Amino acid sequence: MIRAGHAANDRNIPVIVDPVGAGATSYRTNFMSRLIQELRISVIKGNAGEIGVLAGADAQVRGVDSGDVKGDIPDIVRDFAIETGSTIVVSGASDVISDGIRVITVENGHPFMGRVTGTGCMATSIIGSFVAVNPDMAGASAASLAAFGIAGERAAAHCSGPGSFKTSLFDYLSVLTPSELERDQKIRIL
Amino acid sequence: MIRAGHAANDRNIPVIVDPVGAGATSYRTNFMSRLIQELRISVIKGNAGEIGVLAGADAQVRGVDSGDVKGDIPDIVRDFAIETGSTIVVSGASDVISDGIRVITVENGHPFMGRVTGTGCMATSIIGSFVAVNPDMAGASAASLAAFGIAGERAAAHCSGPGSFKTSLFDYLSVLTPSELERDQKIRIL
Amino acid sequence: MIRAGHAANDRNIPVIVDPVGAGATSYRTNFMSRLIQELRISVIKGNAGEIGVLAGADAQVRGVDSGDVKGDIPDIVRDFAIETGSTIVVSGASDVISDGIRVITVENGHPFMGRVTGTGCMATSIIGSFVAVNPDMAGASAASLAAFGIAGERAAAHCSGPGSFKTSLFDYLSVLTPSELERDQKIRIL
Repeated sequence: MIRAGHAANDRNIPVIVDPVGAGATSYRTNFMSRLIQELRISVIKGNAGEIGVLAGADAQVRGVDSGDVKGDIPDIVRDFAIETGSTIVVSGASDVISDGIRVITVENGHPFMGRVTGTGCMATSIIGSFVAVNPDMAGASAASLAAFGIAGERAAAHCSGPGSFKTSLFDYLSVLTPSELERDQKIRIL
Repeated sequence: MIRAGHAANDRNIPVIVDPVGAGATSYRTNFMSRLIQELRISVIKGNAGEIGVLAGADAQVRGVDSGDVKGDIPDIVRDFAIETGSTIVVSGASDVISDGIRVITVENGHPFMGRVTGTGCMATSIIGSFVAVNPDMAGASAASLAAFGIAGERAAAHCSGPGSFKTSLFDYLSVLTPSELERDQKIRIL
Repeated sequence: MIRAGHAANDRNIPVIVDPVGAGATSYRTNFMSRLIQELRISVIKGNAGEIGVLAGADAQVRGVDSGDVKGDIPDIVRDFAIETGSTIVVSGASDVISDGIRVITVENGHPFMGRVTGTGCMATSIIGSFVAVNPDMAGASAASLAAFGIAGERAAAHCSGPGSFKTSLFDYLSVLTPSELERDQKIRIL
């Protein structure tokens, strides 16, 4: 990972880090801190607990799927963005994004997205797709989470449970158009 | 695994072991025996071949998905439960469960469940969910396999093949109610 | 892998090699060359770049999912089959197969098959199923890719996106009959 990150940095390819389970074990926390220190990271995206732990806030992480942080998330996110020089994304019912200047929230999505495994990794991958073509890291991150959330909203409206939800999530994401994204996004700049 | 098992034992968290491929390689057989000896296992769940090998019966295992045992499965299961102090579950067309006192069979399920990968691991996970809230290990194991089998029966009745069967299996499991489980279960105490 | 391959060779069980990412890293290229040299391989199946690299042609491989080769693919495939004594399969919009004597193409399939992960591995597995019962390696490989391609054509005609495509691909493959395969195959001997 370190070598791949340096190669990407040398070629100005954006590096996205998803610090899965940071805070759950010291190994994961320490390695994520090392990644962030050694490399130039474009976007760090985690849940409130993972980002809270890395930011030095009073945070709790249980396993890779849950976590919580005490304190004002927008403040923590903006301060950690300033400290790292990265765009910080905290996913949740309301996603919070900051590049250290703006703080942006995204309200799209559906609780079903927390009932199937892999949606956090999918979200990170979609951020990667968007920042690959848009140099505004915070704006691209917000747009990508809105797109993913809109697909989740539609899949939830047309499924019979978590199995068909997951199938539909891929389908709706694949057919989402820029005009639908613009119309249905719930992106707000604080 | 050993360390996680000891930590769970110290906290009285039930430990479920699925001895995947025991009998297929000596490494797997030996490691499973070690797990069973070193830890206090609440439930050991495998197919007839895997449990037969661990119980010292005349059993054959080919790969991780098939196996067979000579002899009377209910007897082998009850004796192995007494020997280990664990609840033993043998999955199959008719599941056989024993805590050393009772021997229970569960007849729910559908042959389609053997045509997609992962259903054995899913069954073990569902046993884990049930025993987490019900201290009667044998009863909870029987109820969990009945629930999973009922979901499989419904999915099989509404699918077009193994792909849509797997999707529907998750859907039907997620909406199963306690009263439906009570009505449709085919649990029998021998 | 080497030991498993020798065991299969000793028992005359066909060995199929899918040289995933050969050409993308020297480790993968070298290990695949070693597999091919040490073992008696029945079928080597890859994309144009992977086979091109192993065959010593002027080929490019980027990651595990794409690659290209300069030169006439049927010629490269036939020559590499003669050199190795294996049946060579190059998958693509038009699959090319040779056992060193015949060169066969298969035109079944749908672009959607390149939009979900795992279809290359599925194709290799299906080749394995067909050659297990048909000693004509090139003919069995062609029939298997036709069967898989026909299932892909049907799934593409009845899906709403890549999620439901993948589900339907399993469904249609499971119900395909020999007479449908015979009717819809686009196998051609050059």
